[in-house]
Amino acid sequence: MANFAIGVDLGGTNLRIAAVDEGGTLLEKVTTGTRVALGRDQVINDMCDAIRALSAKFQASRTMLGAGIGVPGIIDMETGLLRESPNLPGWEEYPVREEIERRLGAPVILENDANAAALGEKWLGAARDVNDMCILTLGTGVGGGLVLHGRIWHGMNGMAGEFGHMTVDPDGPRCNCGNTGCVEQFASATAVMRMAREAISSGTAPQLARAAGSDPEFSAKIVYNLAIQGDQPSRDIFRRVGWALGIAVGDLVNALNLPMYVIGGGVASAWEAFSPYMFEELQRRSMVYAATAPTPEARQPSMGVPAFPSKEKGTGAAAGVQPRGVGRKTIVTRALLGSDAGLYGAARLPMLGSDPAWD
Amino acid sequence: MANFAIGVDLGGTNLRIAAVDEGGTLLEKVTTGTRVALGRDQVINDMCDAIRALSAKFQASRTMLGAGIGVPGIIDMETGLLRESPNLPGWEEYPVREEIERRLGAPVILENDANAAALGEKWLGAARDVNDMCILTLGTGVGGGLVLHGRIWHGMNGMAGEFGHMTVDPDGPRCNCGNTGCVEQFASATAVMRMAREAISSGTAPQLARAAGSDPEFSAKIVYNLAIQGDQPSRDIFRRVGWALGIAVGDLVNALNLPMYVIGGGVASAWEAFSPYMFEELQRRSMVYAATAPTPEARQPSMGVPAFPSKEKGTGAAAGVQPRGVGRKTIVTRALLGSDAGLYGAARLPMLGSDPAWD
Repeated sequence: MANFAIGVDLGGTNLRIAAVDEGGTLLEKVTTGTRVALGRDQVINDMCDAIRALSAKFQASRTMLGAGIGVPGIIDMETGLLRESPNLPGWEEYPVREEIERRLGAPVILENDANAAALGEKWLGAARDVNDMCILTLGTGVGGGLVLHGRIWHGMNGMAGEFGHMTVDPDGPRCNCGNTGCVEQFASATAVMRMAREAISSGTAPQLARAAGSDPEFSAKIVYNLAIQGDQPSRDIFRRVGWALGIAVGDLVNALNLPMYVIGGGVASAWEAFSPYMFEELQRRSMVYAATAPTPEARQPSMGVPAFPSKEKGTGAAAGVQPRGVGRKTIVTRALLGSDAGLYGAARLPMLGSDPAWD
Repeated sequence: MANFAIGVDLGGTNLRIAAVDEGGTLLEKVTTGTRVALGRDQVINDMCDAIRALSAKFQASRTMLGAGIGVPGIIDMETGLLRESPNLPGWEEYPVREEIERRLGAPVILENDANAAALGEKWLGAARDVNDMCILTLGTGVGGGLVLHGRIWHGMNGMAGEFGHMTVDPDGPRCNCGNTGCVEQFASATAVMRMAREAISSGTAPQLARAAGSDPEFSAKIVYNLAIQGDQPSRDIFRRVGWALGIAVGDLVNALNLPMYVIGGGVASAWEAFSPYMFEELQRRSMVYAATAPTPEARQPSMGVPAFPSKEKGTGAAAGVQPRGVGRKTIVTRALLGSDAGLYGAARLPMLGSDPAWD
């Protein structure tokens, strides 16, 4: 039977742990709350217990390759220290990797959660048939990850892939990062809500105002529903989401000329509402995109492909995957794995082993 | 004695050919006009004659490794066809590489000129002590090249490195590429002249108006001289150059987290006038730069380093070159090789050989 690895998605809210085999088949998944309030040691205890339990279950019949852990924050890849982690207070400068390895008695690979999501989509998701790709994850903020030659591109300090803080509107809204007009200020769920509030305040968005007043769970999803129903102020919000993404992805296309750019995260569910505007900007703003764009019909190779996990790798070819050669096209498409991308990517880490040229 | 290679910089105006040994020492350089008007065949004849003459001269005592040719335009790396080349009309879709190989009876490597310049600066110039870097070349337009793990990053279609067409001002001046507000519309020599004309037309730039009226050779260099002498409208022009570069380089720092970003081309001579503004934007707009910025004094490792060619590689270490490790800094600095960067980079190509993982 195929070897397996453990993937962990350690979020500020949820702790998810999965055993995945080398073929990408999920053997078992455990989801539990991250008990952040009980402190670092308790969270690490919970995680190690779950890893041990899952490993024990499958180790009888298979070889365990190791554990990969996706963590929100900046990781020092050499030391395994967490350098910055707003959602895990008190974890900074703590030797997370060393501590987990000590408790498990097994090697552990720590990775930034957005990088893990990129690797997951590359392994089993939208980008499974290309070697070079990047992902923009539209959630509370906008995260990113870059995969080159099948490996996560960490950059010099492990800080590569901060696509959410590329500038798209130099005089735009202030961002927590210190900049003004970051992608994150237009394409995150937080930004959708800010734009909705602005529209309501301006008095020109009666349907949004009604929804906000009547629904205690007023959210980006509700703004999306209104946009799909034709409400113009709501449509305008997603026009701005698409505009910002078009500029940022266009910059990445001009700079890197990758075969695939994946849009993931919760706001990616609003694809129908923002993607036409995104493609419009891409076509107009990126000469490299314009020279390599597929026809609008062929834009989304993922459509029509069986949902994850893809058992038959071959099916990708018929679904718009690019041949190696001169006429290769630039694909900008939706993520396929949803919130599991980071979990699968984390499990993939121990399978890749080390590559001196890349690590 | 060290092996050698021939580097060619085939420009729309000048044809330059050099023999360079493996240690980076220039053996001989020939510069001649590119006789574009006489047609493709004549230019190729001129080039092959010069390559043969130079090779013959050094082949008696050394091994010739091959020839690399830097060409303005987009090259299909697989076929050696020139796909787009505004400065070499009639060369499109012509099998340049095959034809030169046939005439020389030796293998030839074709490369985009901005990519060759990136490789030159990486081999012998500002980036000689790092493996990952990119260059922005500020000339008539703004070109770019990206080197990852010591190799040119071509991207899927050989179109990577178009940094000059990243968007910095979504509603800014129209660019030939179809976009509005590209870096090239602010940081090229053409843009400096456009901004000077705009300032003159506005009636608020008397010194610029006087210089433009009296000097038939009115140029970006003259605008720079006025800026250095304290003329405010001229200083404002370079403030905008620095502003645009700060945004674009900041985006690249956030996306790639490279150790070094090199600014080259003629307009880079105005470093003193634009770089303070560029660093200001970088610091404010790129969280990755802010987290990894050297102190202002240490910003420019190239200052104080002996001018090219560096005979003693060791001197770099004392001059601010980054150690491998956690505290590595992001360096944004001037190119060192001037117009020779592309020539040296072209000569470097046959020395690198092929790398299946990268080519």
